[in-house]
Amino acid sequence: MTDKAYTVFEERQKERGIDLQEVRRRLKALEIETPSWGYADQGTRFRTFPYKGAARTTLEKIDDAAAVHRFTGACPAVAIHIPWDKVDDYGTLTGYAEERGIRIGAINPNLFQEPEYMLGSVTNTDAAIRRKATEHLLECVDIARAVDSKVLSLWFSDGTNYPGQAPIRQRVNWMRECLQTTYGAMAPDMRMLIEYKFYEPAFYHTDLADWGMAFNMANKLGPQAQVLVDTGHHPQGTNIEHLVAYLLNERKLGGFHFNSRKYGDDDLIAGAINPYELFLIFYQIVDAMRDPDPAIAATANRIAYMIDQSHNIEEKIPAMIRSVLNVQVQYAKALLINFDEVREAQEKQDVLAAEDAVRSAFEQDVTPLLRAFREEDGLPVDPMRAYKESGLHEKVLGRVSKQETTPSGLK
Amino acid sequence: MTDKAYTVFEERQKERGIDLQEVRRRLKALEIETPSWGYADQGTRFRTFPYKGAARTTLEKIDDAAAVHRFTGACPAVAIHIPWDKVDDYGTLTGYAEERGIRIGAINPNLFQEPEYMLGSVTNTDAAIRRKATEHLLECVDIARAVDSKVLSLWFSDGTNYPGQAPIRQRVNWMRECLQTTYGAMAPDMRMLIEYKFYEPAFYHTDLADWGMAFNMANKLGPQAQVLVDTGHHPQGTNIEHLVAYLLNERKLGGFHFNSRKYGDDDLIAGAINPYELFLIFYQIVDAMRDPDPAIAATANRIAYMIDQSHNIEEKIPAMIRSVLNVQVQYAKALLINFDEVREAQEKQDVLAAEDAVRSAFEQDVTPLLRAFREEDGLPVDPMRAYKESGLHEKVLGRVSKQETTPSGLK
Amino acid sequence: MTDKAYTVFEERQKERGIDLQEVRRRLKALEIETPSWGYADQGTRFRTFPYKGAARTTLEKIDDAAAVHRFTGACPAVAIHIPWDKVDDYGTLTGYAEERGIRIGAINPNLFQEPEYMLGSVTNTDAAIRRKATEHLLECVDIARAVDSKVLSLWFSDGTNYPGQAPIRQRVNWMRECLQTTYGAMAPDMRMLIEYKFYEPAFYHTDLADWGMAFNMANKLGPQAQVLVDTGHHPQGTNIEHLVAYLLNERKLGGFHFNSRKYGDDDLIAGAINPYELFLIFYQIVDAMRDPDPAIAATANRIAYMIDQSHNIEEKIPAMIRSVLNVQVQYAKALLINFDEVREAQEKQDVLAAEDAVRSAFEQDVTPLLRAFREEDGLPVDPMRAYKESGLHEKVLGRVSKQETTPSGLK
Amino acid sequence: MTDKAYTVFEERQKERGIDLQEVRRRLKALEIETPSWGYADQGTRFRTFPYKGAARTTLEKIDDAAAVHRFTGACPAVAIHIPWDKVDDYGTLTGYAEERGIRIGAINPNLFQEPEYMLGSVTNTDAAIRRKATEHLLECVDIARAVDSKVLSLWFSDGTNYPGQAPIRQRVNWMRECLQTTYGAMAPDMRMLIEYKFYEPAFYHTDLADWGMAFNMANKLGPQAQVLVDTGHHPQGTNIEHLVAYLLNERKLGGFHFNSRKYGDDDLIAGAINPYELFLIFYQIVDAMRDPDPAIAATANRIAYMIDQSHNIEEKIPAMIRSVLNVQVQYAKALLINFDEVREAQEKQDVLAAEDAVRSAFEQDVTPLLRAFREEDGLPVDPMRAYKESGLHEKVLGRVSKQETTPSGLK
Repeated sequence: MTDKAYTVFEERQKERGIDLQEVRRRLKALEIETPSWGYADQGTRFRTFPYKGAARTTLEKIDDAAAVHRFTGACPAVAIHIPWDKVDDYGTLTGYAEERGIRIGAINPNLFQEPEYMLGSVTNTDAAIRRKATEHLLECVDIARAVDSKVLSLWFSDGTNYPGQAPIRQRVNWMRECLQTTYGAMAPDMRMLIEYKFYEPAFYHTDLADWGMAFNMANKLGPQAQVLVDTGHHPQGTNIEHLVAYLLNERKLGGFHFNSRKYGDDDLIAGAINPYELFLIFYQIVDAMRDPDPAIAATANRIAYMIDQSHNIEEKIPAMIRSVLNVQVQYAKALLINFDEVREAQEKQDVLAAEDAVRSAFEQDVTPLLRAFREEDGLPVDPMRAYKESGLHEKVLGRVSKQETTPSGLK
Repeated sequence: MTDKAYTVFEERQKERGIDLQEVRRRLKALEIETPSWGYADQGTRFRTFPYKGAARTTLEKIDDAAAVHRFTGACPAVAIHIPWDKVDDYGTLTGYAEERGIRIGAINPNLFQEPEYMLGSVTNTDAAIRRKATEHLLECVDIARAVDSKVLSLWFSDGTNYPGQAPIRQRVNWMRECLQTTYGAMAPDMRMLIEYKFYEPAFYHTDLADWGMAFNMANKLGPQAQVLVDTGHHPQGTNIEHLVAYLLNERKLGGFHFNSRKYGDDDLIAGAINPYELFLIFYQIVDAMRDPDPAIAATANRIAYMIDQSHNIEEKIPAMIRSVLNVQVQYAKALLINFDEVREAQEKQDVLAAEDAVRSAFEQDVTPLLRAFREEDGLPVDPMRAYKESGLHEKVLGRVSKQETTPSGLK
Repeated sequence: MTDKAYTVFEERQKERGIDLQEVRRRLKALEIETPSWGYADQGTRFRTFPYKGAARTTLEKIDDAAAVHRFTGACPAVAIHIPWDKVDDYGTLTGYAEERGIRIGAINPNLFQEPEYMLGSVTNTDAAIRRKATEHLLECVDIARAVDSKVLSLWFSDGTNYPGQAPIRQRVNWMRECLQTTYGAMAPDMRMLIEYKFYEPAFYHTDLADWGMAFNMANKLGPQAQVLVDTGHHPQGTNIEHLVAYLLNERKLGGFHFNSRKYGDDDLIAGAINPYELFLIFYQIVDAMRDPDPAIAATANRIAYMIDQSHNIEEKIPAMIRSVLNVQVQYAKALLINFDEVREAQEKQDVLAAEDAVRSAFEQDVTPLLRAFREEDGLPVDPMRAYKESGLHEKVLGRVSKQETTPSGLK
Repeated sequence: MTDKAYTVFEERQKERGIDLQEVRRRLKALEIETPSWGYADQGTRFRTFPYKGAARTTLEKIDDAAAVHRFTGACPAVAIHIPWDKVDDYGTLTGYAEERGIRIGAINPNLFQEPEYMLGSVTNTDAAIRRKATEHLLECVDIARAVDSKVLSLWFSDGTNYPGQAPIRQRVNWMRECLQTTYGAMAPDMRMLIEYKFYEPAFYHTDLADWGMAFNMANKLGPQAQVLVDTGHHPQGTNIEHLVAYLLNERKLGGFHFNSRKYGDDDLIAGAINPYELFLIFYQIVDAMRDPDPAIAATANRIAYMIDQSHNIEEKIPAMIRSVLNVQVQYAKALLINFDEVREAQEKQDVLAAEDAVRSAFEQDVTPLLRAFREEDGLPVDPMRAYKESGLHEKVLGRVSKQETTPSGLK
């Protein structure tokens, strides 16, 4: 049945003017990093429910990340969080990962948990705390070197809860100082990806609140600094694909944290709430990959794709597989856009034809394509079914939670 | 100086046509319940920072609530949360509170922390879990009787995170069954206040997502069921004072949870982000208090005002005092509206004059009024200063945290 | 090629457990009413751009609506707007429509254009204006009778721009009086559909601001009154499909105005911005159609589907065809949900499996199904191409705009 | 009574540590430009209601702007809109304004009304249209020279309604080319203020959608280009005062368009919906005025304040007076902040004290201050009452509308 379906699919794409060889080449190149913390228990301020089988240690997280790569073939790296994934010997850690077929990806410092950081880390009024924060950033640069990671991925929870609480302009300058120091310590082939967030946990102002602030900071730091777009970190209604296109035009788009949101920063499975938005993001990326300007194309080709979600009520490993599959599906659909058709309609300013040229690619069912591509690569054609049949689910259930997680907060 | 300021204030209000005796009478009648959980550590999913001096036990929470009442004179009741404030002997608990000059207020069941409730409590697909939830509600009705509380305050975290996850219509019916049973167990002088919430911790659909669903449920249950408005539980842009007026017109507004939000359900100090909104809410309430229809006026006069906030980075007791003062300020301002002037402008359909009649009351500085009213009542004229000078701050610092609160979640 | 594609499609659906006969039966029953005003020039407050070929008269609008039905086979009725479509002889009007193969659908009164209505129509402080508004409503009931329409579709722009501007509670009662009178005049087989809108043109409060207010009004009026959901009339983030399910459960969902929005009430082509949302709305409807409770199923089967959009920059007829096709596509996909699979996963509370059972239907490409269904019905298999090849585009260009539309407003 | 009230006010501010001389000096320096179009009829897409007495010609608009200045003393300039205010002889125009005591302020090109601009002006795919748009911009630079205006105020409606409609990245570059040409034509003492808007009339993407895009453009153009913040042009929840502080820190904040919004870009009277937000904006500005860095202080002192509203249902002149008064009130309150107290609390990281230091200034009633300041300047102490008693209202009613404005659009 697959074969017939693929044949029909192939004919249809041919009619649509799509070169499937190129599509498959690009699809194969797609790497999606999964986060170590996505395999552990996560929750809301009301409760972190303990989930049977959730990873308890860094090594277990690596086991799980490796499993996701095994089933999908698309996730050869795992992002780590310091200090959650701090170990004594990073050589052992990278070895452990390599043995399981993956590598260590982006290094994510944590500047939001120490009591000192309650009112700010790199923007704290207290210079000693800013120094401590900077040292943690420098430590993460060292760890990156130790695990041969090329990406330092920065998110700051820094901000305030009330008008007047802190000197907003001063804090911009403090942050810049700390990041300048960190930037200076990076190896020439490392990148610093700067994430922004509309709000939470700061509820009045967030020091890096939007792409413009992250972009301006990256500009001031230099070419190794770029912006990281987390799809859940925007005000309602924001046209994220517009920001993506804009940052690509400036050669400053460095990476993504994929997840879905309907309300705040919900951190749901990528593509689960508004799959068309994810498709349209990839439309802008693929469009940039084809740009005659090689610097723009190179920026698009070098984007670091990462999952960053909070699987509060789902089984962790299959939730991650689902996320990866959803990203693959939307990327595959974007590759099916006939860009000549789009350009022609745009040039004629034919609104309906241009819209149709983009949307009609989304309406394709890429299942036959993905199955064929996996088959060719020796991967399970249906990764989710393969997971279910693998016995891994039962195996991780054997992990006994060290202690029941305690309730975290209040209504 | 106060005297002169009050004289000037009094003259101004006389000019404006305001009867200050009536204003002071109503102001004196304002009671704002504080929540026991507002004195304990609270946080976000990223972190609950331990705060020196935060209450650790129910008795300490009652101590702190009593202190807030001592300084403000406006908070004679403390809401409790079951099981957080569960005790063996409720007689002892009420006695402890009474000795400190306060009483037990609304009873708040907790149906969001037990692992069973991860996918729903009164709307869970599993009938056994729904039964367990109903039993907890009935237990809370019993506790209400034991502590002589007249208000059962219900908030449900129930909802789903993904399309298709659960049968939405079925869940409406399940919830109704559970609440019907609970309603039937209430004493005739008890009220059930039904709270709604736009989202969180459910990120796709929340079973009681808006006032309309809570209102419809209250209608079906009967006259002892009313709606509770939490000021932070609405979509951006919602005209909350409109909902307040609407529910008063239907005699179904039962209570408030006051707090501020700029983004999601931020749970900041009431009146700290948009004080005019709080004023406009009270404008609608005072307007209803003056309604010729006695049923509407009675509904407005019977509203249960409660604070429900999350003091993540603030000292707990003064944060609560500030909240209470902010509510008092906006209520006092609403009492300074010249309703005849408003009505006259409305009848002439003079948009600018009507707007001015409302806004100009907000622009009054009510400090002299509040100081005079407190002086008359034998209260400290400046509650915040009185707190600072009382030595209480230093005293609660003696409380040693039993254990450092652990981090709650992830980015 | 179509045949092979359909065969593959059919096999796949068989594997998925879908009965295509039932799907095609339901698909054939789908009727989508188009609005007469959607064929005329429309714009924003900044400008209504004159579009070559836009309909200038009611008869031209009917011509265009008939053309859309001819190409799609799904639009046998055209909604009219009074007084825009007011004519001397409604018999002639219905005859004109019938000759072109369509009928007159919902009657839409207009209470927002007369200068008297600037500050309100059925909620105006001035009783004479409320009477005038009521008379217009009664006139529309008469017109409905004259054109044999069974649906009175009500939208009110009534509201205020400033706090204090008008007595909010009073206005609720005034509206109810007017609607009660109108309701009383309806024939027993007519329905009154009550639409709500979050904001615009009123910018502080809108008298019917949300589903809850429309629902409560419909409840008070009686069984012939139901709620109409316009997909663009909600706060950001609102879970519209949840409201749909809720209203179906109450047997009070009467109709839809379909359109898309990314920001405010953008009135873009239905399904153009977030197609998954439209699919999820139909998921809830199809689920209700299958409800064992016949009253719920009957409500779902009786929903009046209407397009209501503002084609500001698009050619009118193909924009309408596109809208109709998008609605068909999402309905067809919802019909491909395996509801047994969903139910089973829901019963097991298997979050990922339940989500997958719904989403995987959305991922089907329904092109072969729609082509086959059209072929069987003697319709063009590709309505958009048929339109382009029909010469109609060139023909309507012959319409010379009577006068250039003037700019409408300001920044 | 005023005297006594001022004495009490003075004493209170002295206690609070405020130097009223400095406050009055700064208050006197506040100039708020009013827009010529704010005196004419304005509306929504549903209807522009004709208002008796609205200005019909540019000269009448200047009459009305001069009247607002006469009553408030704060509005010595009127912004004009080209081509709405295009005249043959700009010398006559400036002379007419000067005779009435005002001058011509910012020049506002209009690139959203010509049919050519339906799909874009400076970002249109058609190079001829981009050239036409650029020529209009250059014409406006010439007009600025002719009327001795130093500010070119740019807002572009350019954007798209559908995904794929136009090449987003290309449009960024096209706009930059056009603005570069315009920038090059400006006199060295002119400024170009670049406005951004979240959405409307474009409903999918707006070429200059947020402060970051306007800021980046201004950076690329040079020091004479700055950002203009329209308070109604942001996503819900945006912390506008944060953006203000950020842009001041970058010396790139050039001007404001003041107005209020609750929902979209509602264009209501400034300060009417959330006065605290307006106060907090001024808090950041006054804070920057006091910055030790002279470049930051100079930027803050040079901000161009303008009203830009749509008085759809209000009488035009008093609506403008109200707007001006509201801006003055919030600025006056911001001047009453004790910045030493704020700084001290910020340095101690005392959250509650810092918040209180800011909020308590907002709670002052500045009526006595404004009355005294007006008295000293020979202005009416109550501008609104002076307007009402002036007979101007009756006089403008004599203006007979040339033609009734026609309805603008549709639901």
